[in-house]
Amino acid sequence: MFKINDNYLKLPGSYLFSTIAKKVAAFSEAHPDASIIRLGIGDVTQPLAPVIIDALHKAVDEMGHAETFHGYAPDLGYEFLRNAIAKNDYQDRGCDIRPDEIFVSDGAKCDSSNIQEIFSVDNKIAVCDPVYPVYVDSNVMAGRTGTYDPAAETWSNVIYMPCTAENNFTPELPKETPDLIYLCFPNNPTGTTITKDQLQVWVDYANRVGAVIIYDAAYEAYISEENVPHSVYECQGARTCAIELHSFSKNAGFTGTRLGYTVVPKDLKCGEVALHSLWARRHGTKYNGAPYIIQRAGEAVYSEEGKKQLKKQVAYYMNNARIIYEGLKESGYTVFGGVNAPYIWLKTPDHMDSWQFFDYLLEKANVVGTPGSGFGPSGEGYFRLTAFGSCENTKAAIERIKKL
Amino acid sequence: MFKINDNYLKLPGSYLFSTIAKKVAAFSEAHPDASIIRLGIGDVTQPLAPVIIDALHKAVDEMGHAETFHGYAPDLGYEFLRNAIAKNDYQDRGCDIRPDEIFVSDGAKCDSSNIQEIFSVDNKIAVCDPVYPVYVDSNVMAGRTGTYDPAAETWSNVIYMPCTAENNFTPELPKETPDLIYLCFPNNPTGTTITKDQLQVWVDYANRVGAVIIYDAAYEAYISEENVPHSVYECQGARTCAIELHSFSKNAGFTGTRLGYTVVPKDLKCGEVALHSLWARRHGTKYNGAPYIIQRAGEAVYSEEGKKQLKKQVAYYMNNARIIYEGLKESGYTVFGGVNAPYIWLKTPDHMDSWQFFDYLLEKANVVGTPGSGFGPSGEGYFRLTAFGSCENTKAAIERIKKL
Repeated sequence: MFKINDNYLKLPGSYLFSTIAKKVAAFSEAHPDASIIRLGIGDVTQPLAPVIIDALHKAVDEMGHAETFHGYAPDLGYEFLRNAIAKNDYQDRGCDIRPDEIFVSDGAKCDSSNIQEIFSVDNKIAVCDPVYPVYVDSNVMAGRTGTYDPAAETWSNVIYMPCTAENNFTPELPKETPDLIYLCFPNNPTGTTITKDQLQVWVDYANRVGAVIIYDAAYEAYISEENVPHSVYECQGARTCAIELHSFSKNAGFTGTRLGYTVVPKDLKCGEVALHSLWARRHGTKYNGAPYIIQRAGEAVYSEEGKKQLKKQVAYYMNNARIIYEGLKESGYTVFGGVNAPYIWLKTPDHMDSWQFFDYLLEKANVVGTPGSGFGPSGEGYFRLTAFGSCENTKAAIERIKKL
Repeated sequence: MFKINDNYLKLPGSYLFSTIAKKVAAFSEAHPDASIIRLGIGDVTQPLAPVIIDALHKAVDEMGHAETFHGYAPDLGYEFLRNAIAKNDYQDRGCDIRPDEIFVSDGAKCDSSNIQEIFSVDNKIAVCDPVYPVYVDSNVMAGRTGTYDPAAETWSNVIYMPCTAENNFTPELPKETPDLIYLCFPNNPTGTTITKDQLQVWVDYANRVGAVIIYDAAYEAYISEENVPHSVYECQGARTCAIELHSFSKNAGFTGTRLGYTVVPKDLKCGEVALHSLWARRHGTKYNGAPYIIQRAGEAVYSEEGKKQLKKQVAYYMNNARIIYEGLKESGYTVFGGVNAPYIWLKTPDHMDSWQFFDYLLEKANVVGTPGSGFGPSGEGYFRLTAFGSCENTKAAIERIKKL
């Protein structure tokens, strides 16, 4: 008789954003006239930029003719895209990353959940708390996290690094030594970030203790301040200790278009074994490439015109972030983030817990946000709003919240 | 110090098709004037059908306007696509499969390698031999296959079901009871298939011993004979024992466009736990949906015009299959498959082993095929050619082989 992977049964509830979607659907059914504004999930709302639309049409036409048709993509992704990534995201920033260290994929969510697979089940992970739930959940499924304590909402074999207002949302080096360290800056969900010097401390630490940093740079396009690193490879020594994940979802609006990439430097080794060769084996065996037409769309992101158009798109969302941030401040909320990231992290008022505030906001203002506790125990008492709505909706949502 | 998943180190060599690509690249570099014809990897060559091109353009346009823009897809995939699949691939064939049992993905390769993840590591798999390498390799990575015997080219904890000319390429029920049974009909690599009655035996067996059948139906569009099942759900009782994998790669030419789906019936349970809920959890947590525009292209596959155009495309490749089959027969080869599948499986001549014949064909005829032994020990002495080339190239390849 077959047996299931019972690690799955240890997971409490469903995936955070699936739970929220179900709650909102139920509310919507009960209140069909309510005009709900969604600032919960980090899903973009602006259309793809014209230069990307053009690239897509062109590539679709190529797929319609035998001479220009494309079948299976090369294992790592097309060179035209990997070259553009290596130049723009790395070499132009002084980072020593080569095209053959870049693995194109269908998004950072898949990569961030699959990357743990090339590591031993015996490794111990460290995560910021609060944190993007995929890092922890994927490790639960793999059997790496021990047992769940429902009271504390923590796993026995996970090192939590609290990030709260008290430490300015910057994790401290953990007391217990981890094997894998998940870091995401600019941060999801808190919207805060760290300086290059602070990140260097983490890189030095990882090299010293023999840990791997899994660095999620999904929000780097939103960095507006100096001395905030766009890539972990801006730090000395990152090539021997860090893997970096990138998404096209937030900088180019690809949440429904699907494209991302992962960097595994060839210098990152466990003894003689390069992690690059393990990830290449996984990529070749268990994945079959992002669609040709989408990879061409990704290439357009790096064109001169593409950069110009997407800078405007990011500015559009960052204007929303400002509206949320300032509007909430005016209403007396304690607010963080929103300067180098599209997320605003607020303290829930009147001692409401995160889910109470979620229900309160949904019922009273018909605004959907994300409860901080969904990201980890230290997120309790906080709440996330995203800047990815339309400007009109964002303004309307803040007006409604002001009136509460 | 972090540790790697050392199951990866047990894998002998690289992924089969990556190895072939490297060998061909090396030959091509050494012989820049050689006009190489690739009938190795199962990659299509005909352009996407006009109806699909139209659907792609239309969906791209939608992505360019805020009112019709699409962000993250629903967890299981868009309803418009799942409804079309449920109706056309199942209900119209008398199979009781509902849209909410269908999980849209970016292809059957990913699904066929990820599906093992919802099962315990202690489960024992059974595979046909020869077999699509992804089934075994993904289980090796998960630590389910025991140790490798390089002489026998087998894993200690895998049940092999030999499929050779002697048993008409139809596996017999294994002596040892497996937990997971991988079946693929029409078969890759042998191009042969089984009758509905024969498949019913497997379904009854799986229900009796408590095994799950993972049924890969990637080639069902190539079935030309009566009484060959297009889906495992044509068999009585399959809803309690079978998962089915589907690809759009071969019926619609999506190898570079990427779309597939997996069916997990809600009646398939381990005790009280529905496998549907486990796969839904994985899909929601570790995957983020196929691109909207590609799902629209998938919908077009099921339109009346789409069916008509794709029937012609399949016929084009099946004509190639006939050319290969008959050409090789005329030249004295012993040949199988090619009637209900786009693969031709031949016995290597003159006691050459599979890789010797690969090198021979590449060097003497500049034709690339796939060595049978790459699919498993019982594939030794066989060789696979695919019908997915252009008709012109296919004819040229056969002429060259005839002249050897």
